[in-house]
Amino acid sequence: MSRPRPLVPRTDPADSVRVVGEFGVIARVLARSGVARAAEVGPGDDAAVLRTPDGRVVATTDVLVEGRHFRRDWSSAEDVGHKAAAANLADVAAMGAVTTALLVGLACPPDTPTTWLEGVAAGLAAECAPLGAAVVGGDTVSAAPGSGAVVLSVTALGDLGGRAPVLRSGARPGDVLALAGRLGWSACGLAVLRRGFTSPAAAVAAHRRPTPPYAAGPAAAGAGATAMCDVSDGLLADAGHLARESGVRIDVDRAALVRATLEPPGPLQQVAAALGGDPMAWVLTGGEDHALLATFPARRPLPEGWTPVGAVRAGQPGVWVDGQPAEAVAAAVGAEGTGHAHFR
Amino acid sequence: MSRPRPLVPRTDPADSVRVVGEFGVIARVLARSGVARAAEVGPGDDAAVLRTPDGRVVATTDVLVEGRHFRRDWSSAEDVGHKAAAANLADVAAMGAVTTALLVGLACPPDTPTTWLEGVAAGLAAECAPLGAAVVGGDTVSAAPGSGAVVLSVTALGDLGGRAPVLRSGARPGDVLALAGRLGWSACGLAVLRRGFTSPAAAVAAHRRPTPPYAAGPAAAGAGATAMCDVSDGLLADAGHLARESGVRIDVDRAALVRATLEPPGPLQQVAAALGGDPMAWVLTGGEDHALLATFPARRPLPEGWTPVGAVRAGQPGVWVDGQPAEAVAAAVGAEGTGHAHFR
Repeated sequence: MSRPRPLVPRTDPADSVRVVGEFGVIARVLARSGVARAAEVGPGDDAAVLRTPDGRVVATTDVLVEGRHFRRDWSSAEDVGHKAAAANLADVAAMGAVTTALLVGLACPPDTPTTWLEGVAAGLAAECAPLGAAVVGGDTVSAAPGSGAVVLSVTALGDLGGRAPVLRSGARPGDVLALAGRLGWSACGLAVLRRGFTSPAAAVAAHRRPTPPYAAGPAAAGAGATAMCDVSDGLLADAGHLARESGVRIDVDRAALVRATLEPPGPLQQVAAALGGDPMAWVLTGGEDHALLATFPARRPLPEGWTPVGAVRAGQPGVWVDGQPAEAVAAAVGAEGTGHAHFR
Repeated sequence: MSRPRPLVPRTDPADSVRVVGEFGVIARVLARSGVARAAEVGPGDDAAVLRTPDGRVVATTDVLVEGRHFRRDWSSAEDVGHKAAAANLADVAAMGAVTTALLVGLACPPDTPTTWLEGVAAGLAAECAPLGAAVVGGDTVSAAPGSGAVVLSVTALGDLGGRAPVLRSGARPGDVLALAGRLGWSACGLAVLRRGFTSPAAAVAAHRRPTPPYAAGPAAAGAGATAMCDVSDGLLADAGHLARESGVRIDVDRAALVRATLEPPGPLQQVAAALGGDPMAWVLTGGEDHALLATFPARRPLPEGWTPVGAVRAGQPGVWVDGQPAEAVAAAVGAEGTGHAHFR
């Protein structure tokens, strides 16, 4: 493990948003924003206009707060942009849709360097570009007097391409529970950063820039997924949302989950061993990798990128792991609760 | 003028968002959110799904920061909800569209009373309801450690109903400049509140809950408006945006503007007289009433709600009032600059 390189940008007073002003900031940020394929009217007017070929639009909002969801000394500006986009793009994917555009509401202290905002814009743009999406609008305002924290509220819009949206409420007894993407890597990376280290690099990178399996969402919708959600609060918590919304019991198969997430062994085992913990704590309760969790009718091949990790049963809504209730399993691996609680 | 009644809600520790938690807050807020007519999937899933009958969607974001855009001792929670919605609904109207849904990103200190958030939700819902719109999604997170300020980022989506969007760039020499809605009332109300008073009630109410002329936007689009924008930075500043984007000179007719905004005499004259100022300062540079400013081809009747206030000419892009440059006119009436600068 190596000591971190400082990432905090130095503030050049001549380059702060206070000096450049709102319109200066917007112009600089938009210069890095790319072009949304669906945009009929892009940034710069009272509102953007996007084509919605499906006849419907998917819409979701996620808020990131400095000091809570990111730290400027742990993540570069580009990292923060990637991460803010990823949280939203994954929500859109979890409906079975593809993101077409982002809108960004930003409150930042007047001494924020414009280069930092340009970095965030570059990160947002880079995360969106492979999908043909881009930032098409937003608002940049000065943060509250006395507040030194950036607040970043990102709204993503998406297109379903003719697919039915996959809700959280459609899981049926007999369905297969399946996972796409990684679990626990972001939480592991955060544990590393919290202790002042920056390696293993793969875990830290996963925390700074999650890599959600965007294509797996529309693929699941196309393959008849009955329910789906983004894992942002942790597997047990988000499986709980599926269970409650669908009125079913979800049984996680621990061996299948280990195969899907911890094999071959890698950074999670390495860091857990160094810290004297159980990597399953991160797998079961770590959010922010933005994996996708879905249920599929049994005896149908799963689409690419999906691995079975359990089953849906009739019964009291709840989540069980190898016959143990989620809470007991989480406690046994040393996790605090079954997922992330935003106001604690 | 009467002294203000305190509006700050008392914090019941058992009712703060810290205690109720994210999901508790969301449930309580959604209970007050109404239903969007266009929603196929409403709040509670990974994302909302809205019908877009036009085949396009209009999208815009505005951010309100406590202490900068509102104060909890000057505005009730409902006022803040109304105001946050109005800023966005007016932007959508300024494209010629009708708002169908809102998404709300909210960062608030953990000791924020949930009753205050419920009030904001009720205000958002009440402002949207006449249009058939409602909040369909969002994210509520705890503010940065040490920050006591609420940040509210609202995204509005809208439908053009088959109309072409009206941009800022379409004004042509010979067009008529026209205004819909009020100017200066919000700025006048703010001047009153800043001095510790709460009357004239009409001016204070205009600051707390602006009443933009939403229907005038689609009406202007239907009547062939060549350019349009929302007046949120002040008439001179926003006319400047139209002038620059369209590459034209905009001539404001002061007598016509006075007729449109200051007759019959009312609170603006009353407060200006009491403070020894010129009410034209508020009319020319006050934002936040969210009037609409548009240009129309000459010799066509203006649609309902619109009043002529000037003309579009060929020439160096800029704004003139009775042959004087905007900056000189603003200085002469005692305004600071020509409009609102967000980072000063």
